[in-house]
Amino acid sequence: MTTLSLPTLATIDDDNLQSEIQALWDNKTKPQGSLGRLESLAMRIGLIQGSTTPSVDRAHIRVFAADHGLAQHGTSAFPTAVTAQMVLNFLNGGAAINVLARQHEIELKVVDAGVAADFADFGITDNPQLISQYKVRLGSRDALNEPAMTQEECVQAINAGMEIAKQLDAEVFIAGEMGIGNTSAASLLLSRLEDIPIAQCIGRGTGLDDAGLARKIDTLTQVLQRHQQVTEPLEVLAALGGLEIAMMAGAFIQAAHERRVLLIDGFITSSALLVAERLVPGVAQFAVFAHHSVEPGHAHLLKVLNAQPLLDFDLRLGEGSGAALAYPLLKSACLTFKEMASFAEAGISEKDSH
Amino acid sequence: MTTLSLPTLATIDDDNLQSEIQALWDNKTKPQGSLGRLESLAMRIGLIQGSTTPSVDRAHIRVFAADHGLAQHGTSAFPTAVTAQMVLNFLNGGAAINVLARQHEIELKVVDAGVAADFADFGITDNPQLISQYKVRLGSRDALNEPAMTQEECVQAINAGMEIAKQLDAEVFIAGEMGIGNTSAASLLLSRLEDIPIAQCIGRGTGLDDAGLARKIDTLTQVLQRHQQVTEPLEVLAALGGLEIAMMAGAFIQAAHERRVLLIDGFITSSALLVAERLVPGVAQFAVFAHHSVEPGHAHLLKVLNAQPLLDFDLRLGEGSGAALAYPLLKSACLTFKEMASFAEAGISEKDSH
Repeated sequence: MTTLSLPTLATIDDDNLQSEIQALWDNKTKPQGSLGRLESLAMRIGLIQGSTTPSVDRAHIRVFAADHGLAQHGTSAFPTAVTAQMVLNFLNGGAAINVLARQHEIELKVVDAGVAADFADFGITDNPQLISQYKVRLGSRDALNEPAMTQEECVQAINAGMEIAKQLDAEVFIAGEMGIGNTSAASLLLSRLEDIPIAQCIGRGTGLDDAGLARKIDTLTQVLQRHQQVTEPLEVLAALGGLEIAMMAGAFIQAAHERRVLLIDGFITSSALLVAERLVPGVAQFAVFAHHSVEPGHAHLLKVLNAQPLLDFDLRLGEGSGAALAYPLLKSACLTFKEMASFAEAGISEKDSH
Repeated sequence: MTTLSLPTLATIDDDNLQSEIQALWDNKTKPQGSLGRLESLAMRIGLIQGSTTPSVDRAHIRVFAADHGLAQHGTSAFPTAVTAQMVLNFLNGGAAINVLARQHEIELKVVDAGVAADFADFGITDNPQLISQYKVRLGSRDALNEPAMTQEECVQAINAGMEIAKQLDAEVFIAGEMGIGNTSAASLLLSRLEDIPIAQCIGRGTGLDDAGLARKIDTLTQVLQRHQQVTEPLEVLAALGGLEIAMMAGAFIQAAHERRVLLIDGFITSSALLVAERLVPGVAQFAVFAHHSVEPGHAHLLKVLNAQPLLDFDLRLGEGSGAALAYPLLKSACLTFKEMASFAEAGISEKDSH
């Protein structure tokens, strides 16, 4: 039996460090507080890193891909085959996340957490951009009939996520995801973990029409009834799935343990962070939230996680795209904090006393 | 007598071009519309440039610096000497805008529009980063007693801005500003041009306390009374100032004529854009608004200019800092539009018909 052993987290509330960082900001050549959220962002990163020299020079993206047994019931606008096709698109450099990763020099790798296809069939056998050794199974099980993962599979996925996070070599960790049907899994997790009616946790995902949305609500209501006794976080995760969400939760926990900045993308990744937070309280303190997604459930998740996202760009793509888009803002925060002259250095008069 | 000769603007409403760009977006490997504001941003840039290949590879920042006669009445929290000191800070690379310009490889130059100091006194005689030949005078006049600029000086400043814009070699033009007391000038211009009570156009600028704010309202009310007959845009600009605002207005008009993207920073630069729009209707169509400033009057300006800013970061620094911060978002829009694969190229199944 695979066992789950979760790491502990550092405390990031450090009043002395906070005062030191604030004093450094207040001596920079600008009116106090005038850099607004850049100032609070550098503060947050400093506290996460336990340092007066916050730095986000390097970021790594891992896009976790998996399929969902539940998707056979028409909960997504796209067919399941698209998950594997999009993985190939990632490997060929043609997706949105590839473009944004290139723009910002972010290392991008794809993790096959549980795609319902064998990439060898596509001639992909030894691609350094594809992490394939942690694949749990060919898609999650159909949560309408059984748990999406056995407990064994769920623990295996979480452990895999932790292993993948141990191999990171960057200050910033971005988890992206690709999985036809995974907005359903995220909605189910949010509904059960926070006791929010499922209709409030659901949206059109990648583009359902009205009939599709009604079908999705109906199906997810049935899934919740099927697993109505399940309330413990690990059991909830196993019952409602998905493999990529479990793996991201493990990766977030390990990366937080290593005091990396978790730059959180959208609805699905936020649901994985919620799971991680329920498994190891405190993980969310290491998070910076990139954007407010269009997906209706995201507003609930952001509230639960006490998040103030950096961007509101009407995104609903996933892949880590919103996080990659926001990454230069983190850099701006750290660079202004590091490189701006102080009043004394620049010989500038301070504010009048009147 | 210096004369004002303003250029005409291209029409950017082009239904055919808009349809072409939309069709290209809709074939990219993502659910339609899922890149949200990145899609509308690339569309806007394409319409500005009249091109199906929108591009923002290069950006130039010009920081327009000037002093204000009105500042002697205590309308700012900082003394007038800070304007010149900050120009020296820009030339030494120590200000926020320097850091952000370096981060994003934006060419930065400072324009002495009318600083109340002679930079030769600081040993600055031939610095390629300082554009000094257009300096109109040592600070604007005291608008409480006379127009901030004579009409001659005002036209000279606008013409200088147009000349400076002619020397740009970049798709994106960012105007930054530095001028102790220039939030007062911006508030006055907004109040008069849009007939909004001055109290709604005023904020704490770089950090006035309550007494300072009351004094500012009182002073600006007197200024508006002093110039109550003045309503024509050019006269309003001359009466209420400032030299850097007039020069930025000229630069915006010329850069719009050349179909450059005007990436607008905060309150002061938006007031210059409003002046430009009143002088040459249509200029604002060439603008992309970087951020929503904390300064209360900015909300009015954004509404008047029909703007939807990209960021809401609680900034109130000026210098062009918010625009520089937002610049990589414009790049992301153009790069995803250019580099993402189409469904056909990537061999990906499209949305189900059900």
